[in-house]
Amino acid sequence: MALNNYATGEWMPGISVDCVIFGFHENQLKVLTLRFNQTDIWSLPGGFVGVQEDLDAAAKRVLLERTGLSDIYLEQFHTFGCLKRIQEAKKQHKEVGDKMGRTQDDYDWISSRFITTGYFALVDYEKVVVNVGAMSDTYSWKDIHEVGELFLDHSEILQFALEQLRLSLDITLVAFNLLTETFTMSEVQSLYETILGKPLVRTNFQRKMLSMDILERIEKKYTGGAHKAPYLYRLKRP
Amino acid sequence: MALNNYATGEWMPGISVDCVIFGFHENQLKVLTLRFNQTDIWSLPGGFVGVQEDLDAAAKRVLLERTGLSDIYLEQFHTFGCLKRIQEAKKQHKEVGDKMGRTQDDYDWISSRFITTGYFALVDYEKVVVNVGAMSDTYSWKDIHEVGELFLDHSEILQFALEQLRLSLDITLVAFNLLTETFTMSEVQSLYETILGKPLVRTNFQRKMLSMDILERIEKKYTGGAHKAPYLYRLKRP
Repeated sequence: MALNNYATGEWMPGISVDCVIFGFHENQLKVLTLRFNQTDIWSLPGGFVGVQEDLDAAAKRVLLERTGLSDIYLEQFHTFGCLKRIQEAKKQHKEVGDKMGRTQDDYDWISSRFITTGYFALVDYEKVVVNVGAMSDTYSWKDIHEVGELFLDHSEILQFALEQLRLSLDITLVAFNLLTETFTMSEVQSLYETILGKPLVRTNFQRKMLSMDILERIEKKYTGGAHKAPYLYRLKRP
Repeated sequence: MALNNYATGEWMPGISVDCVIFGFHENQLKVLTLRFNQTDIWSLPGGFVGVQEDLDAAAKRVLLERTGLSDIYLEQFHTFGCLKRIQEAKKQHKEVGDKMGRTQDDYDWISSRFITTGYFALVDYEKVVVNVGAMSDTYSWKDIHEVGELFLDHSEILQFALEQLRLSLDITLVAFNLLTETFTMSEVQSLYETILGKPLVRTNFQRKMLSMDILERIEKKYTGGAHKAPYLYRLKRP
């Protein structure tokens, strides 16, 4: 079974994209991983780049195909171009290829040198409907602290994405893409704490957030009559 | 004249690197540009990626070949993969190719689709000895405000590098790579002002710099006997 008609020149040789899709659930930052058919090899969602397709468009397509989402935050963060990223994974490629019933042509293509551009996406976990695609048989939203080994250099790609996300936090408001439309202040704080990987002082955090003048307080969260119900907020419209 | 033996499979197809080499001179941020032989087309220094060469190594090689420098700050900042970056430059490719006496094979290679990874380098302007290479006949350190039109999408690549450099300033000390080993506080301030593109208040800037505890004051700069000679500083060793 040929998985892709790259032999006909539909795909750019040597270039791929990989997507680190972050979701936030039960106060934990999660990353979407896929398992190759009938193996115990987990990977980030990724794909090739069409000869008539912009690089960014390839990443958006992968994201749409795997999550059903199109209008979401997606940021290119690094391109990984070491020779050894493929060389050291011959065994993994063989195992995956055998389970897929790959032809020699397929195998030669898939295990040739690839440079991959990494993108990270921040999604509302609740809105994702995962489609694992033809190469995988299941998926998992893994806690970023318990991901385990991944295909090729995908662990390194994930760590790089996390660092970039941490750097971005102080500069932009990208993290809010991980929240639902309305949220409590403690939910925002949990989100920041899990991404930064350290606890924050509640009063300081709240003061800083409010001083940025980006949040709009709307109403108290209904919690069944408790008089200490927290306020709900949403991002101010620009 | 075949400029490169890419026909023999020495280079990865479809992938290149481009280097934005920043230098700081006379209180201005400059960027190194090269002019293609006998044309008025200016470009950033760039090159192809060897089939046995890591992507980062290709950028380091380009930097070494063009500046003679090897141990300098180099950061990958973005990969540019739009189809139109090459499609819209057919005329430029033709002009450059004609002056080079390119064969049809050369032209087909050079004007095929390329995805390019951008790196920026921060160099001590005084230490650079430019070697323009076989494809160019002169070079220019251009003021970042007066660069003019560049080859392909190199203007966009330059702007992207500038933005990244601005973002980096608040986070790291990369800017110090642009200075000589010892410097006065006002030289540091000029550097920050030119990169950020805005004036800074001297007293605030000085206080912030000193509070970071990264500078070591060494001695007064010899200025021929003036009693108001400024102090010299250098970065503390880690």
